[in-house]
Amino acid sequence: MTQFSYALLKQDTETQARRGTISTARGQIETPVFMPVGTQGTVTGLLPEALKEIGAQIILANTYHLYLRPGHDLVKKMGGLHKFMNWDRPILTDSGGFQVFSLGDLRKITEEGAAFQSQLDGSKHMLTPELSMDIQLALGSDIIMVFDECIPHPAERKYIIDSTNRSARWAKRCRDVLPAGSDSALFGIVQGGMELDLRKQSAEQLQEIGFEGYALGGLSVGEETSLMYDMMEYGLPLLPDNRPRYVMGVGTPENLIEGVARGCDMFDCVMPTRNARNGVLFTTFGKMSIKQARYIDDDLPIDPECDCYVCRNYSRAYLRHMYKSGEILASVLNTHHNLYYYQQLMAGIRRSLEEGTFSLFRKEFYKKRDLPH
Amino acid sequence: MTQFSYALLKQDTETQARRGTISTARGQIETPVFMPVGTQGTVTGLLPEALKEIGAQIILANTYHLYLRPGHDLVKKMGGLHKFMNWDRPILTDSGGFQVFSLGDLRKITEEGAAFQSQLDGSKHMLTPELSMDIQLALGSDIIMVFDECIPHPAERKYIIDSTNRSARWAKRCRDVLPAGSDSALFGIVQGGMELDLRKQSAEQLQEIGFEGYALGGLSVGEETSLMYDMMEYGLPLLPDNRPRYVMGVGTPENLIEGVARGCDMFDCVMPTRNARNGVLFTTFGKMSIKQARYIDDDLPIDPECDCYVCRNYSRAYLRHMYKSGEILASVLNTHHNLYYYQQLMAGIRRSLEEGTFSLFRKEFYKKRDLPH
Repeated sequence: MTQFSYALLKQDTETQARRGTISTARGQIETPVFMPVGTQGTVTGLLPEALKEIGAQIILANTYHLYLRPGHDLVKKMGGLHKFMNWDRPILTDSGGFQVFSLGDLRKITEEGAAFQSQLDGSKHMLTPELSMDIQLALGSDIIMVFDECIPHPAERKYIIDSTNRSARWAKRCRDVLPAGSDSALFGIVQGGMELDLRKQSAEQLQEIGFEGYALGGLSVGEETSLMYDMMEYGLPLLPDNRPRYVMGVGTPENLIEGVARGCDMFDCVMPTRNARNGVLFTTFGKMSIKQARYIDDDLPIDPECDCYVCRNYSRAYLRHMYKSGEILASVLNTHHNLYYYQQLMAGIRRSLEEGTFSLFRKEFYKKRDLPH
Repeated sequence: MTQFSYALLKQDTETQARRGTISTARGQIETPVFMPVGTQGTVTGLLPEALKEIGAQIILANTYHLYLRPGHDLVKKMGGLHKFMNWDRPILTDSGGFQVFSLGDLRKITEEGAAFQSQLDGSKHMLTPELSMDIQLALGSDIIMVFDECIPHPAERKYIIDSTNRSARWAKRCRDVLPAGSDSALFGIVQGGMELDLRKQSAEQLQEIGFEGYALGGLSVGEETSLMYDMMEYGLPLLPDNRPRYVMGVGTPENLIEGVARGCDMFDCVMPTRNARNGVLFTTFGKMSIKQARYIDDDLPIDPECDCYVCRNYSRAYLRHMYKSGEILASVLNTHHNLYYYQQLMAGIRRSLEEGTFSLFRKEFYKKRDLPH
């Protein structure tokens, strides 16, 4: 982690929002930042050149998926994930924990780690903090996440206590694995369910170990949005302000604005990419489903206020035709637009923070969507 | 067809091969040329910018598919197919005949045209020469093909005679529909099955009507390759040498070389795009299936002699991983490579014709593949 650092450039005066820069061995990341998700070593048909054109500064890759296929040893043999997928900017890898814990009956948790069966071929595996680190290091991740348990919601307090303590012990095991002088940064993940005192305890446990950045985990797991915002509002200030703060798996455009307002620097979510594949598009005025018959002869672009490649060149009618015809170009173009929307949103947020107009930006954002706030 | 013309630049001395230029209202096309197939208004996930980077000068769109979905009236309302799909170079449209006649029991041929049921929703339609012209004109096609019957092989002589004569009458009806001064060129299609005298008769019937270009139809329909080559060898010289000559639906890289040697200027085929979607790739050394286990940790590009975007940036191992993972990037990258291969092949042929070295080029082509010739 020799080259990893976070510089706080500007603190908003009205909110907890902050503008910063993360420096890594593979370049700088201007924050707040949204990270597109490239689960299996690709972001839904987008070429790396398109991702850069869109403004993606860093992408997220899934340890669980790449471990099962094609395997981290193979990726390492091929020169690491960056070379394998032709992406030379930073990559953050999750720990695999979230996917394993989503398997339900197919996994079993012990102090050692999580035993699970592969969804691909039924083969049996044991994911431990040490293996998760080995995988992420083999992939060549720039930002490694500790292996932890994402606690479901709701959960009993006893379960949350035990799980959070175990995750802290796992976090320490992860820290112990990372070689001194590694170019990879290691982030701790705060758990504690929706219990304030346990969140505080988790944040303290992690800071005692010491990490290059800190994330809030266990959010966006089915809880009310207001509860998620409360957890951010309480949880983010518990983290050191000279380190990047990341809320995992969040979220909608609204969630990003509210997360930033509460002091979050980094986000990731499958929403723009998954929605794109289902024909759901993000616009200045809210979401739209390109499948709808009303767009059959609509020659407007997806979002008349958007200046992305797709909105400059294609009509809603064409995108609907591509979608209805099952053409893969539908996914390519829809993903391009949605990710551009997310990147532009973050660029707008960063600009407003530099200019000291974030609260105004936030108000305008809701006004255009006719949303109360 | 005010702006349509063909200029013969150079005639090979050892073969019938020729180097020429087709001029259209949307720009020039250097021949011999291969036209990628964009059935439904897209070439398998490739952006128009990528198609141009690959060197595509003209693409083919399918009248039958676009008529059924999204409908030619809609495309016309959206400003024509070029604007709809964001492609400003020439487009050739087929007549819809081939697809209709492929429907077998679902269609019935009369003097008026071909009645058929839609594969999409079972709705009933009647495709006539006049409707085919209306559709192609509504799409804004640069090169319109006459509505004809593609005769299956084998077929009885009596059937071939009747069908070929009817196709000639249909060709005349198509010619009568095209407005004088249209920017669209109209091509006649020689039928006659595998019967030499009927091919000659068909070629004469069409020239009597007069077209801006001529195609050989009814080839690549299951006949032996040697018979197809014989039909080209006999059929192409029957066509006027001051007009482009097009062999429809052909073919493999070998077919293109042999078609050029026999005097063909234009080709189209779904082979590079369809094969790409199935993981089959064209290389200097022959075809390869990226699915194969032998490529699992192969860090070479698809074709070490290829300098396309895919071969410059991705390994066989990555492409295999994309394919096995069901990622649409597999189709995008495979299609890019295969079409580049085809375009490079044609560019090499054109260069060799300019330099008077076509026969040498042909020999080298087979030598690299270890193919007898």
